[in-house]
Amino acid sequence: METPAGSRPQQAPVAPSQQEAGGAASLISEYLQVRQQTERLCEPLATEDYVVQSMVDVSPAKWHLAHTTWFFETFLLLGPDGDQRPHHHAYQRLFNSYYNSVGDMHPRPQRGLISRPTVEEIYSYRRDVDRRLQSMLARLDPPTLEKSSALVELGMHHEQQHQELLLTDIKHVLSCNPLRPVYLDVDGDERRVSSPLGWIGFPEGLYWIGYSGPAFAYDNERPRHQVYAGAFELATREVTCGEYLEFVEDGGYRRPEFWLSDGWAAAQKRNWISPLYWHGKGRSRTVFTLAGERELNPADPVCNVSHYEADAFARWAGARLPTEAEWEIAAHDPDVEDSGTIEGNFVEDGLFHPCAPSSPLPATGLSQMYGGVWEWTRSPYVPYHGYKAPPGALGEYNGKFMSGQMVLRGGSCATPRRHIRRTYRNFFPPDARWQFSGLRLARDVAAN
Amino acid sequence: METPAGSRPQQAPVAPSQQEAGGAASLISEYLQVRQQTERLCEPLATEDYVVQSMVDVSPAKWHLAHTTWFFETFLLLGPDGDQRPHHHAYQRLFNSYYNSVGDMHPRPQRGLISRPTVEEIYSYRRDVDRRLQSMLARLDPPTLEKSSALVELGMHHEQQHQELLLTDIKHVLSCNPLRPVYLDVDGDERRVSSPLGWIGFPEGLYWIGYSGPAFAYDNERPRHQVYAGAFELATREVTCGEYLEFVEDGGYRRPEFWLSDGWAAAQKRNWISPLYWHGKGRSRTVFTLAGERELNPADPVCNVSHYEADAFARWAGARLPTEAEWEIAAHDPDVEDSGTIEGNFVEDGLFHPCAPSSPLPATGLSQMYGGVWEWTRSPYVPYHGYKAPPGALGEYNGKFMSGQMVLRGGSCATPRRHIRRTYRNFFPPDARWQFSGLRLARDVAAN
Amino acid sequence: METPAGSRPQQAPVAPSQQEAGGAASLISEYLQVRQQTERLCEPLATEDYVVQSMVDVSPAKWHLAHTTWFFETFLLLGPDGDQRPHHHAYQRLFNSYYNSVGDMHPRPQRGLISRPTVEEIYSYRRDVDRRLQSMLARLDPPTLEKSSALVELGMHHEQQHQELLLTDIKHVLSCNPLRPVYLDVDGDERRVSSPLGWIGFPEGLYWIGYSGPAFAYDNERPRHQVYAGAFELATREVTCGEYLEFVEDGGYRRPEFWLSDGWAAAQKRNWISPLYWHGKGRSRTVFTLAGERELNPADPVCNVSHYEADAFARWAGARLPTEAEWEIAAHDPDVEDSGTIEGNFVEDGLFHPCAPSSPLPATGLSQMYGGVWEWTRSPYVPYHGYKAPPGALGEYNGKFMSGQMVLRGGSCATPRRHIRRTYRNFFPPDARWQFSGLRLARDVAAN
Amino acid sequence: METPAGSRPQQAPVAPSQQEAGGAASLISEYLQVRQQTERLCEPLATEDYVVQSMVDVSPAKWHLAHTTWFFETFLLLGPDGDQRPHHHAYQRLFNSYYNSVGDMHPRPQRGLISRPTVEEIYSYRRDVDRRLQSMLARLDPPTLEKSSALVELGMHHEQQHQELLLTDIKHVLSCNPLRPVYLDVDGDERRVSSPLGWIGFPEGLYWIGYSGPAFAYDNERPRHQVYAGAFELATREVTCGEYLEFVEDGGYRRPEFWLSDGWAAAQKRNWISPLYWHGKGRSRTVFTLAGERELNPADPVCNVSHYEADAFARWAGARLPTEAEWEIAAHDPDVEDSGTIEGNFVEDGLFHPCAPSSPLPATGLSQMYGGVWEWTRSPYVPYHGYKAPPGALGEYNGKFMSGQMVLRGGSCATPRRHIRRTYRNFFPPDARWQFSGLRLARDVAAN
Repeated sequence: METPAGSRPQQAPVAPSQQEAGGAASLISEYLQVRQQTERLCEPLATEDYVVQSMVDVSPAKWHLAHTTWFFETFLLLGPDGDQRPHHHAYQRLFNSYYNSVGDMHPRPQRGLISRPTVEEIYSYRRDVDRRLQSMLARLDPPTLEKSSALVELGMHHEQQHQELLLTDIKHVLSCNPLRPVYLDVDGDERRVSSPLGWIGFPEGLYWIGYSGPAFAYDNERPRHQVYAGAFELATREVTCGEYLEFVEDGGYRRPEFWLSDGWAAAQKRNWISPLYWHGKGRSRTVFTLAGERELNPADPVCNVSHYEADAFARWAGARLPTEAEWEIAAHDPDVEDSGTIEGNFVEDGLFHPCAPSSPLPATGLSQMYGGVWEWTRSPYVPYHGYKAPPGALGEYNGKFMSGQMVLRGGSCATPRRHIRRTYRNFFPPDARWQFSGLRLARDVAAN
Repeated sequence: METPAGSRPQQAPVAPSQQEAGGAASLISEYLQVRQQTERLCEPLATEDYVVQSMVDVSPAKWHLAHTTWFFETFLLLGPDGDQRPHHHAYQRLFNSYYNSVGDMHPRPQRGLISRPTVEEIYSYRRDVDRRLQSMLARLDPPTLEKSSALVELGMHHEQQHQELLLTDIKHVLSCNPLRPVYLDVDGDERRVSSPLGWIGFPEGLYWIGYSGPAFAYDNERPRHQVYAGAFELATREVTCGEYLEFVEDGGYRRPEFWLSDGWAAAQKRNWISPLYWHGKGRSRTVFTLAGERELNPADPVCNVSHYEADAFARWAGARLPTEAEWEIAAHDPDVEDSGTIEGNFVEDGLFHPCAPSSPLPATGLSQMYGGVWEWTRSPYVPYHGYKAPPGALGEYNGKFMSGQMVLRGGSCATPRRHIRRTYRNFFPPDARWQFSGLRLARDVAAN
Repeated sequence: METPAGSRPQQAPVAPSQQEAGGAASLISEYLQVRQQTERLCEPLATEDYVVQSMVDVSPAKWHLAHTTWFFETFLLLGPDGDQRPHHHAYQRLFNSYYNSVGDMHPRPQRGLISRPTVEEIYSYRRDVDRRLQSMLARLDPPTLEKSSALVELGMHHEQQHQELLLTDIKHVLSCNPLRPVYLDVDGDERRVSSPLGWIGFPEGLYWIGYSGPAFAYDNERPRHQVYAGAFELATREVTCGEYLEFVEDGGYRRPEFWLSDGWAAAQKRNWISPLYWHGKGRSRTVFTLAGERELNPADPVCNVSHYEADAFARWAGARLPTEAEWEIAAHDPDVEDSGTIEGNFVEDGLFHPCAPSSPLPATGLSQMYGGVWEWTRSPYVPYHGYKAPPGALGEYNGKFMSGQMVLRGGSCATPRRHIRRTYRNFFPPDARWQFSGLRLARDVAAN
Repeated sequence: METPAGSRPQQAPVAPSQQEAGGAASLISEYLQVRQQTERLCEPLATEDYVVQSMVDVSPAKWHLAHTTWFFETFLLLGPDGDQRPHHHAYQRLFNSYYNSVGDMHPRPQRGLISRPTVEEIYSYRRDVDRRLQSMLARLDPPTLEKSSALVELGMHHEQQHQELLLTDIKHVLSCNPLRPVYLDVDGDERRVSSPLGWIGFPEGLYWIGYSGPAFAYDNERPRHQVYAGAFELATREVTCGEYLEFVEDGGYRRPEFWLSDGWAAAQKRNWISPLYWHGKGRSRTVFTLAGERELNPADPVCNVSHYEADAFARWAGARLPTEAEWEIAAHDPDVEDSGTIEGNFVEDGLFHPCAPSSPLPATGLSQMYGGVWEWTRSPYVPYHGYKAPPGALGEYNGKFMSGQMVLRGGSCATPRRHIRRTYRNFFPPDARWQFSGLRLARDVAAN
């Protein structure tokens, strides 16, 4: 395996949508593009980097490579239409994440103890599954192919999620190392002027949210349904590092009056004094990025804050976080929905870090709703009215996590561009900080 | 202090509503009734019973007695219109629960380490504050009295909440003792036939929820606002012990497919195999109650289950928990709202345990919406649109807990009858089991 | 139960030795004196004080009262020559400390959760067992009486050990209370001048240690056996608070070079910065005692230090702790052994705190070898060559604890005078601080 | 770096003793042999195997490679006579184990989080230090060389200790992997007949123990001093797996009467039911070895037991563990001491597992006192009378660990042959199981 350290991942070629093309060939082509992109993201890693699990939430890079492969193997190759041959009997257990219906799984906190299979063996596993999946798809009759296509599509979106996790996890691994290793030396974006904060208003009323179209969407985005929203305003841009620094300097982490009770307890217990990856004191701060330790840029959107911190900042600022419905209402943009093209700082841009908006405000008046940082909402992650988890193991994909987590919207600089949608619901526990997570303010509009 | 073990607390006299009577006299009368009721609930306790904290969530009985007193002392007597003399300087810290704005507090997990002040000294503290508060109220001019009345009223509702907690906590304390002591030997209710389960439907539409009237309600019930609800059905009665036993016997605690992921983790870690306080195996079960260990009555509503268990049961039963909005919509009953009288098994009934419904179904078709057991909803405890926490220390009463907890509705057999309302929002973490918490099923109505 | 707070326990009358008197009568008399002394030590307690377990190592006072009673009940009344009637079936489990051979036991960390039996019920238990034991002893024939006498004698020594633990435990309980309650208001001893430190030398050679006489001694003091000791010197007095304060002020708790590795880890983890119960900073310090918070007296022997702290102090002072053999060799004093009278500050003196020596140095040149504070040695608690644990449950009394603990010698201000011997081996884990434990320095004498 | 998996480490050439040869050349030659042997032991490892820390006690293989290098760099190259150039400034902290006097250290539990420096970079570090140390030694004048030689010698013995730890640690790492990887496929030794157990007696008396000669020995083996030992007997061979299996099958892990109190608590808490690395039930057992999972051979000495288990086995067998003095007295063998050659199953034999004795009993009557498994003694690890830790950082090598650990004697199948001595004192906490640790029985001889 050649992994020349420091080489830059190439731009992933844009794939034709599965919808437009027919048959196995185009599905296979899309599949291979997704798979190659995962491996491209690993190119800057040394073999040793693939092994480490720096905290329970983090998985080793080689585990991500194997687990995404396990997903295709388990749900396609070992399914009724597959060839039924497991690549290695032990992998079924080693690389099962949380699917109780599939069987036992290796304990999550011990993913970093498994030096074998080696990285090379895991790449062999990938190649074997890729090869067998192609031959399986090539030989299926059209009705079976259609059924399998849905599973392949789910697996590709699943792998895209793990592409993002792979980056957030390797960032955490490298951050624990006093040598502060660099994943990839990119120039970054040096815009140092943030735009002034404005507010866009939305009237109270009944709105539709959720997904109902023909393209891929996760089960948790369905069914499309009506919600009643009170009048609200949403900030034109995300909260910046400069603004967040003012909160820090104003004693934000020492004043319980801004915090949820659980948030205050978490902040005290873990000695939080600023966002994760910030170092230094006063006005002289640096921040650890995938490009190494950098000077803090006040114009960048703040990143790697927990929901608790986002919520405390909002209260300090005299505002609040938006609900996920408000976010989705505000994100409605006929231009985007017509063109199907979402603009933003995504993984394909190769920055691996949020940056201040460069382009003029879009017609909606809301900059950077997509990409850069995930935006915390004040909405707990719960099922939509009418939600039904699918039967079987894939029902475990989303449904069982609808407890104790908060919704984030819009994608980040580590999200694949084609992975995100207006209705997309990401979710993490309120104390999670290692994702590319930031915030945008909202506020009530008083009724007259 | 005479505490003849086993004596039955007398029926608390019904107090005239604060709204109906004017002036300090009636306020003082109501105040004294609430205060006496707290002490009446303590009559069956031995001195030793007042001291123990059996887990972090539990507070010793003597702490409840002192903390409710501290509330009146801090917000009235030490306020701008009070006499400003603390009963004991150390009590400000010892009996502060969680009000950061008031100052430091004794650590919650150490409430059971404090043998002094003795029970008798705490009763002296109560008598001193009662006396001084009466004289304060008697001397205030009307405008000041009105302002103080709101605080007194809040303090009375606060004390009523602690009356319920005192009972749930002492039940937990006694349950940890292999001698299985009896709080109070009551006959219980022996109805052994549960009514058949029916469903009441509600159409989709816009509904108003929350409180907007002139009487007392907590800030978290405000503002009254509109919500859009999809069509749903609600069960005519709560889930019974008999039904829950079927879930248990069907392997409910061994089958992850019914559980939220966090719920399954909690159940495994704590070795849950049935509701808290159930003992025995198979069809031969007993349950620990405030009247001691009793045979399990299949007709009684199931009690002392966590949100996780309630949710798992509902999934096993092919249903779900209602949202808090659905519960409040369904609980609308013009008869009750006209008469102002809520029927149910409340603390004044002296059963201290839920029982099967005795009376015929009310006009709504929904039995026992109030009293008996709190009903878990599927709604996380979040602020209503337009909610603002009050300024100052009392803003900490509710607002900062709007994270990580689930809403329960309707009151229990340990709730004072006059404490409950249709809009009342109780909340506990999803793994809490020591409250009188049960469930009622709901289900979606498919759109045509 | 009358427990007038603040009354001073009376001097326990000196009992004639079991050896001198014959028959059941004198045994019963001795027994009753020991039992009454336990209750006398409880007189200053409020009922609430009996209940609390302030840490795992501490037992509630009422547990001590019951467990010592359980010992007589289990090994005599329920033994082959007893009346075989348990006072309460549940007490066998509740008040078993660690005797696996007797059966299951209530978990130690949960001793403080048991509000019942009440204090009054435990006193009834004591009276019942006392009465039945007297009638049992009175009716035994001489050979059976002799056998039972040994058990009664063991039980009395056992109860004396718990008298000391009761005091150290109640001191810890009260110390956790911000009100800093006073157990008993004694004047204390105000001697503020400590004698200069001298050294007494002992030549290398073979010495006998351990007990072989006809009087009572624990199994762990046997068999008497020879040890070879290198030449050493022992300090003429214990380390004082003034000396220890110099160590503290010299950065003793911040300089790892003085500490054993485990000791340093314990000190860091628990934030030790001075002995337990010391408060304040710099030269202005107070110390919590059973007589309440007092000004630190530099002439008093230092107390409530762990073995780790004692060891670190000794290294700082250029010395070391003595071995238990060295201590026992040095404590040899023909005067004492002839008269059978051990002088020192014991529990009967009613000071409940160590104090500077008042009397002139004894002939040995070593002051206060007995009483005041237990002296940590550098000897792990291991069996003597030839040691055999007795068969049956009583073999669990000492033998199974011969691991991970360090030996202390000489008794303390909480030890009953007649309980101590030159060969007596007390033992606690090296991180234990809540006993009356201090130290005396030793050093090697270089061979010529 | 070439690491052909499965290649067998070659026999390390026997080095001439430092004592026999003069000058830098022979010292360098010895040094290089020790260094090469460390790397030879790593040859079977995949890169990924070097990274993992499977529990706090274990260090990653690459950490061992770096730390042993750090030792030479810190105490020689950065010392007064070295070239003073650190290879990398961060390594001083990263690869310091526990030397507070040298400065801060990377936290031990986080050694497995450090993916960089890579394995290759660490080999470069080794080569750089090797080169610079050679040139330093070559240019020193004789007096300075003599002083440095002592440090080099200490560093070589230090590295030999880590050679053993590297093997025990990698065994633990591989054992955590459900794939049960093989470190090196060796044939093992298939002797299946164990010799009958005999006893060799030793009279009571004064004996000398400890080291006083001119060759290298650790400070903890000094000074040589006299001890008095009672009469005892020592078993002619170590306890076998077959004997230990009888203990297991006799309920040894379910019967507290055999166990020290702390041992019983550890066994319960960690669910011990047999030695570490044993799998299976009843008479059909396998054991994980560095050669993979093997059938349990009843004739092999039992291995990977904690002190608690060894002690419990001995009590079950009606015997006890020897003291370290008894072991050293019994190990006296003029033949060995004349020839300077210690026989046994050492790391150079390449078995990496204990085996039954093959050769006839030596003249002492005691087989396999050396090699195979370390033998637990009943002696806590404490300083000898007259022990003084050396001044400075190297005083931390042994002295500060003389607390809470038990002594083991004789070396194991992972110990370099030239590393062991009769007076050698190894030490581990009583619950440690991952070393090659077994036991030999002893018993008292009753005095006549």
